[in-house]
Amino acid sequence: MSNPDFPDRMKAIEITKDTDKPALVAGDVAVPEYGPDDVLVKVAASGVNRPDLMQVAGMYPPPPGASEIPGLELSGEVVAVGANVSAWKVGDKVCALVTGGGYAEYAAVPAAQCLPVPKGLSMTQAAGLSETFFTVWHNVFDKAGLQAGETFLVHGGTSGIGTTAIQLAKAFGAKVITTAGTDDKCQACRDLGADVAINYKTEDFVEKVKAATDGKGANVILDMVAGDYVSRNFKAAAFEARILIIAFLRGPKAETNFTPLLLKRLTLMGSTLRAQPVANKGAIADALREKVWPLIEAGKIAPVIYKTFPLAQASEAHAILKGGAHIGKVILEVD
Amino acid sequence: MSNPDFPDRMKAIEITKDTDKPALVAGDVAVPEYGPDDVLVKVAASGVNRPDLMQVAGMYPPPPGASEIPGLELSGEVVAVGANVSAWKVGDKVCALVTGGGYAEYAAVPAAQCLPVPKGLSMTQAAGLSETFFTVWHNVFDKAGLQAGETFLVHGGTSGIGTTAIQLAKAFGAKVITTAGTDDKCQACRDLGADVAINYKTEDFVEKVKAATDGKGANVILDMVAGDYVSRNFKAAAFEARILIIAFLRGPKAETNFTPLLLKRLTLMGSTLRAQPVANKGAIADALREKVWPLIEAGKIAPVIYKTFPLAQASEAHAILKGGAHIGKVILEVD
Repeated sequence: MSNPDFPDRMKAIEITKDTDKPALVAGDVAVPEYGPDDVLVKVAASGVNRPDLMQVAGMYPPPPGASEIPGLELSGEVVAVGANVSAWKVGDKVCALVTGGGYAEYAAVPAAQCLPVPKGLSMTQAAGLSETFFTVWHNVFDKAGLQAGETFLVHGGTSGIGTTAIQLAKAFGAKVITTAGTDDKCQACRDLGADVAINYKTEDFVEKVKAATDGKGANVILDMVAGDYVSRNFKAAAFEARILIIAFLRGPKAETNFTPLLLKRLTLMGSTLRAQPVANKGAIADALREKVWPLIEAGKIAPVIYKTFPLAQASEAHAILKGGAHIGKVILEVD
Repeated sequence: MSNPDFPDRMKAIEITKDTDKPALVAGDVAVPEYGPDDVLVKVAASGVNRPDLMQVAGMYPPPPGASEIPGLELSGEVVAVGANVSAWKVGDKVCALVTGGGYAEYAAVPAAQCLPVPKGLSMTQAAGLSETFFTVWHNVFDKAGLQAGETFLVHGGTSGIGTTAIQLAKAFGAKVITTAGTDDKCQACRDLGADVAINYKTEDFVEKVKAATDGKGANVILDMVAGDYVSRNFKAAAFEARILIIAFLRGPKAETNFTPLLLKRLTLMGSTLRAQPVANKGAIADALREKVWPLIEAGKIAPVIYKTFPLAQASEAHAILKGGAHIGKVILEVD
């Protein structure tokens, strides 16, 4: 049964397993069905994230029930609402976290995972908010309970996670230390508000963190590197520090010395956002709307957009993230 | 200036560094000075703990300000109180956690770290309560928040920590799984209330924990083994499990795979009790007095005493812990 408000078919990026073709190709697929707790969104733009690259490589399969189409965040306009949805209506401009399906003209999204597009932001800017803001809020504030006056260390300061974490931690009164791979990137981190930016290729971040904290170390550490960084984070941590691992850029295995975990009474936590239930994500959305969206609307925090591509050039967008020279987000413009 | 209520000198066990002599020898030393927030206790008995062995081996030095005399817990009678102390009076029978100094006729103890000797317990039984009850309560209930209905795994089920943890977790409504090194020890754990006891020498605890929990894993794990157990605990853990490392019987270093930390959203925490401030220990004492002492007085939980020795035979007592055949606590009787 066709609906006058949206078509039956749409363009979307599909992951091909045919090794003769590029891994990402534009296809023509059915517009997704939406459930009673979902909204159907006509996508304006969709953010590109490192887990999308892992999904293409076959290392991060969609959780049960999720779309096979890549894309973990989007912005767009609501074109239909499920029977149980009262928070949104047709015509609302939203940005949202999704478990997949962002690289497409339409996406079905749990209503609880939508947020209003902050006033003053373009749809392209809004498309790049959800994945990093949900992740940073959940880890740094919900799980680690970062407090004003504490020292916060985030690795990968110019990544989407990094640029978001620097700004959020700074806005909430923390001293911010970050690592990046070039002096130019370090400068970009300082421009975003980082108090200290460490070039990890030329400096030892453990020593530099100690030097910047009178030998005390960082109270909260957000890490997507892992590998040997686990032991090094333990050394860079303050007494009773909380350390969060959210990805394994250097792999999930390493010889690790747990002595500081005991002596400094550390807490090490891991998480991924994608597999969590809608209720958890909805709670994060509520916190962001109350505590962070006003800061964005006041211009105190801004998403950092590095480059945009049309949807059909998803492969080129992925190449940028693989290259690692970017500062901030890469966005696919759909509409 | 001598005091009519206690002498100036006392017998105490000292750690000698003279390799021609036994490591532990009885000596004659000054009765310790007590501060305004301390009580002076005439020691009746003192518990022997594994950290005492590490201290003798030079691997666990007393924290700043602590007595050089070994002994982390004791029972006895208050013979003097500091100027600020109102909670205790001369003649009170107490048991207490100390940062050292238990292997002696007198010990100065922060008043906040004393608890009344539970009704129905001998001074010898009371001497073996503090180290394990403070440690288990702090880790399993305060830090990990074990809930009724959750599954709790404790390694080393027949150790002082193990016998306490099994009883406490069971009393608060958890399903209890433990590991031990012989079938007889496994039976002793079941006799104490463990639902499942795994002989870790003949069985794989990861498989057995999964089998006992419909594949779900344990919600809280208390570990003093570390080494390769860190990765194996990750495998045996349920979603959102909390894992506590309190010692390194297999060493602090190991090749560790952190994949389950992310996928199962685990929390790994380390701590040692000894170096924590008096206020932290006082808060644990308050919780024990309110929530656990009534269970001891009602006979629902009992300290497990393996063997007692006179103070002068501290070396023999240590040999028992080194041998590892004990079930429960070894106590030095002083008075």
